[in-house]
Amino acid sequence: MVNETQHTCSASSSSKSDGGSSSGSESSKDSSRCSTPVLDADRHERLREKMRRRQDSGDKWFSLEFFPPRTANAAVNLISRFDRMGAGGPLFIDVTWHPAGDPGSDKETSSMIIANTAVNYCGLETILHMTCCNQTKDDITGHLQKAKRLGLKNIMALRGDPAGEEWEEEVAGFNYAVDLVKHIRNEFDDYFDICVAGYPKGHPEAESYEADLRHLKEKVFAGADFIITQLFFRSETFLKFMKDCQAIGITCPIIPGIFPIQGYHSLRQLVKLSKLEVPQEIKDVIEPIKDNDAAIRNYGVELAVSMCRELLDSGMVHGLHFYTLNREVATTEVLKRLGIWKEDPRRPLPWAVSAHPKRRVEDVRPIFWASRPKSYIYRTQEWDDFPNGRWGNSSSPAFGELKDYYLFYLKSKSPREELLKMWGEELTGEESVFEVFTCYITGEPNKNGHKVTCMPWNDDPLATETNLLKEQLEKVNRRGILTINSQPNINGKPSTDPIVGWGPSGGYVFQKAYLEFFTSSEIVTALLKVLKKYELRVNYHIVNVKGQNITNAPDLQPNAVTWGIFPGREIIQPTVVDPVSFLSWKDEAFALWIEQWAKLYEEESPSRMIIQYIHDNYYLVNLVDNDFPLENCLWQVVDDTFELLN
Amino acid sequence: MVNETQHTCSASSSSKSDGGSSSGSESSKDSSRCSTPVLDADRHERLREKMRRRQDSGDKWFSLEFFPPRTANAAVNLISRFDRMGAGGPLFIDVTWHPAGDPGSDKETSSMIIANTAVNYCGLETILHMTCCNQTKDDITGHLQKAKRLGLKNIMALRGDPAGEEWEEEVAGFNYAVDLVKHIRNEFDDYFDICVAGYPKGHPEAESYEADLRHLKEKVFAGADFIITQLFFRSETFLKFMKDCQAIGITCPIIPGIFPIQGYHSLRQLVKLSKLEVPQEIKDVIEPIKDNDAAIRNYGVELAVSMCRELLDSGMVHGLHFYTLNREVATTEVLKRLGIWKEDPRRPLPWAVSAHPKRRVEDVRPIFWASRPKSYIYRTQEWDDFPNGRWGNSSSPAFGELKDYYLFYLKSKSPREELLKMWGEELTGEESVFEVFTCYITGEPNKNGHKVTCMPWNDDPLATETNLLKEQLEKVNRRGILTINSQPNINGKPSTDPIVGWGPSGGYVFQKAYLEFFTSSEIVTALLKVLKKYELRVNYHIVNVKGQNITNAPDLQPNAVTWGIFPGREIIQPTVVDPVSFLSWKDEAFALWIEQWAKLYEEESPSRMIIQYIHDNYYLVNLVDNDFPLENCLWQVVDDTFELLN
Repeated sequence: MVNETQHTCSASSSSKSDGGSSSGSESSKDSSRCSTPVLDADRHERLREKMRRRQDSGDKWFSLEFFPPRTANAAVNLISRFDRMGAGGPLFIDVTWHPAGDPGSDKETSSMIIANTAVNYCGLETILHMTCCNQTKDDITGHLQKAKRLGLKNIMALRGDPAGEEWEEEVAGFNYAVDLVKHIRNEFDDYFDICVAGYPKGHPEAESYEADLRHLKEKVFAGADFIITQLFFRSETFLKFMKDCQAIGITCPIIPGIFPIQGYHSLRQLVKLSKLEVPQEIKDVIEPIKDNDAAIRNYGVELAVSMCRELLDSGMVHGLHFYTLNREVATTEVLKRLGIWKEDPRRPLPWAVSAHPKRRVEDVRPIFWASRPKSYIYRTQEWDDFPNGRWGNSSSPAFGELKDYYLFYLKSKSPREELLKMWGEELTGEESVFEVFTCYITGEPNKNGHKVTCMPWNDDPLATETNLLKEQLEKVNRRGILTINSQPNINGKPSTDPIVGWGPSGGYVFQKAYLEFFTSSEIVTALLKVLKKYELRVNYHIVNVKGQNITNAPDLQPNAVTWGIFPGREIIQPTVVDPVSFLSWKDEAFALWIEQWAKLYEEESPSRMIIQYIHDNYYLVNLVDNDFPLENCLWQVVDDTFELLN
Repeated sequence: MVNETQHTCSASSSSKSDGGSSSGSESSKDSSRCSTPVLDADRHERLREKMRRRQDSGDKWFSLEFFPPRTANAAVNLISRFDRMGAGGPLFIDVTWHPAGDPGSDKETSSMIIANTAVNYCGLETILHMTCCNQTKDDITGHLQKAKRLGLKNIMALRGDPAGEEWEEEVAGFNYAVDLVKHIRNEFDDYFDICVAGYPKGHPEAESYEADLRHLKEKVFAGADFIITQLFFRSETFLKFMKDCQAIGITCPIIPGIFPIQGYHSLRQLVKLSKLEVPQEIKDVIEPIKDNDAAIRNYGVELAVSMCRELLDSGMVHGLHFYTLNREVATTEVLKRLGIWKEDPRRPLPWAVSAHPKRRVEDVRPIFWASRPKSYIYRTQEWDDFPNGRWGNSSSPAFGELKDYYLFYLKSKSPREELLKMWGEELTGEESVFEVFTCYITGEPNKNGHKVTCMPWNDDPLATETNLLKEQLEKVNRRGILTINSQPNINGKPSTDPIVGWGPSGGYVFQKAYLEFFTSSEIVTALLKVLKKYELRVNYHIVNVKGQNITNAPDLQPNAVTWGIFPGREIIQPTVVDPVSFLSWKDEAFALWIEQWAKLYEEESPSRMIIQYIHDNYYLVNLVDNDFPLENCLWQVVDDTFELLN
């Protein structure tokens, strides 16, 4: 009556299939159990496994293709687009490889660095394209090693366009994508998932459609894991191609490449490059409206939706790959109409996770970088181990210096003029700074009629959660308690709560109230007197730019301020207030006054001197109310402080 | 106005002062922070630091001296005494060294093994005596290495009694305690805390009182950390001695040895051995009542209390050392009357911690051994690392086999006749087993009029906490759900709660409801049907003696079932339900049916066959209700199961 049941551990088995060439921390101990709680299976699977799991479960999915931008500003915008389009739940994104644009370099616009940013800073599963013709083996190996080092796990292996009209095979070099596939498997074993291109109409240079199918089969048999196709205009084209592939023994996933027509010129250019023929019925619709961008886009969306429906309805297609041309609107609309754009408000952890394989166990971070997760990832990119389970078990790893202010993911997204409008063309005193903070909290325009939508410490508008505290925050900012981070206390809300929930369902989440602000030494003096009354209940850390540090924290132990209890799991405590990291954060938090704000103004100008004065004289304070089941006492602490000052 | 404050980390600094010879896991990473939360500073300090801290804070303390027992049964009793007297909060205990009794051997009655048991199994800070005369350097080094390996950290260095009347110095050997002190410091650097003996009246063999003081100074200057004195009968004797010590430059702590007179014969014997003179005024009281043990003991308590008061009132004495003669009553009474017996109901963790230095970071254990902590310690004694923070981070270390049933700390404290009275001279069927379980829960006598105060899985009467569940437990045991472990759900009670609290004050403790029992396969079949309704909410593990295993646990992850949230600390989760360890526990839990119960009866006897049948056919089940904020649903699960069966 009772049968033996074997329960295997998906995370552990997936990490084993990573192959022998995995780096340091990934190679899990040879253990019969998962070494870390699997909060989110996706985080532990490789791309081909994710595809297989979606196929098994019948969940339709999509992916998004982008090309590297030309300028640093365009890169900043593209990264914002990654964040926004990432919210719709793509299974992966891919970044194309432009041999002319120094694609493997460290430039902020290179394919390599854009893919790196997508994986590490935006937490997106990412495929990096790579072309091989006209390159030496050493070049290719160098690129692949770098990709691996940066945490990239997937390569789209392409031939690329030969330079010059009359192309001839090089005997020792890479002539076809299949050579690159073989090279990757030879040199990197099973480390990378490999994607190759399929041509539903046959490659334009192939002898024949059949010959091209055979080339594709060679690529798959050389080690490719799945296929993404060139764009096409009719669903029949793809479905026939797919059947032909299956007929000759290609069994891996084949993902149709979808190109929503977004404008007359982009269509013409693409068709020229890909040497495809636009069907007459499409030409007939487009030609008459060729100057009406909106009309063409609407038609393109319509066309794409109906073609995608046919593909999905065929039962042969599980995922759709979109050529976005780095644009958002058309693709997003197609996806929403298909019902596969899934904005899941549920978060695996309260902060945005990175997709770097080294970070797959990471589940604790200091709260200080809550509004600057990319900066946190940047400053910890050299770590070999990431805190897991308990922050205090890690040997206080060093944070990277913040010398690279130019780095685009640390830069404000807004241009200087915009910032001056928000933060004041001319400051008249500390009070005008208080006003900026207050306007950011309230969402009201400042006295020049501009809304303050970002701050040096918060690149985005206020988090929904912070809205819970809005009224109190406004009051204290007006009086010079300049808040930069806060969270309310939570005593066991369901993990599915739309505002404060995170982690798998069936759990409960908790928080200790937290408040972090800059303030004057006068207020700090009063605050310290008030805090005596709250000993034990309130932990504080108070530090100025010179590092003078006042705290009542026991030893140097971190204080867990967010945690969750889940069915059948150990406790997850994803954010802590850590006294040691606070001193690294302090450097960053104070530097932002100067780098982002003071430097908007002329040297020696009164505005600049006001910010400099605050930087030199204010304290950075954090407060934790340990009594999370009671009403948050931090507002009382602040009120008492103001009362003492009066 | 604001000054720089330095906060140092006591745990880290104390672990550094351990010296270079520390073993593996103790040597903390060179970090500016404590590597683990300090729940209990005592656990991380060495004895001399504890003494210093008590002296600084003005907390008076006591310590207890025992000698090794002669028989294994006496050893079992002594260990129970350690547990009971340990509850009063001694700063340490010490175990004397009897050269004639093979003191360094692995016998369960040897000084070495008794001290090992006190440290590892009873969690007591322990000093092991060691004498040096008539021993080779190699012998001594061997003993010290073994002591270190077993986790002993303190040695009382003594000369010991030379064999034979006319003792002569050996040129190359150890002639005096000072030689042993030097040897320990030479060979083990600062690893051990060293105690030496002081003689308030001078050593009987010393040339003079002054010469003896000089010898004592030599011992201290050779590296001793503190002094315990020989017994004395008048407080003035000790106070004069202490002043004389200070006068010649002895500044380390000097602890008076207190001997409560407990009987005429023991006094005479001790006086003879120590060559001390009993003052006339004491003789005058004792001689007339020498046959009245109770009267002598009362007088002895009276005398000790008044002498101890004088010592404590002098302001020179911070701790008192008691020569217990392995007896409980007199010493306990003196301590209680002095007000320094402190039964602190507060526990650093929900389970009894071990004092082995390797285990100082341990803060997670599987719940299964909750009633058999000594067995857990025994089975994990070979581990190099102990789970800390998260059970799942440890690489599922192997549990020691349970082959050594003879080992005294795994044996029942009750003799066979006693067990037969409790568990039944003759069993008539499974129902008579149900009755034993039920009587254990209710505390009512069984049908032969005997109370059931222990079970093979619980050596002690029911925990106070379990009383919360008594009514339900009784009901289900009557019907064949034979419970061996359970805890109620707790949703945030103060850490100071007298029943379920643990850890430092100001915190909150939580539990998921847990129930573990043996039951028939018929009940398991019904239970599994019922559990379908409770998917996600209830995690279960069901296993029989052959290892057939049914579970709905995700992967092989542990489920935290007890945790605490404390001010300024990371989260502590001291008990987990771990699917991997459960299979090791299963072997032990099933074996106890046979080893402790079936073997009480003749082979082939019906009683034995009944137990054997249960062992072979029942399942061991554990259930966790993950919804700790709601009312415990496990009783409903069981009720539903019985209903389904009817």
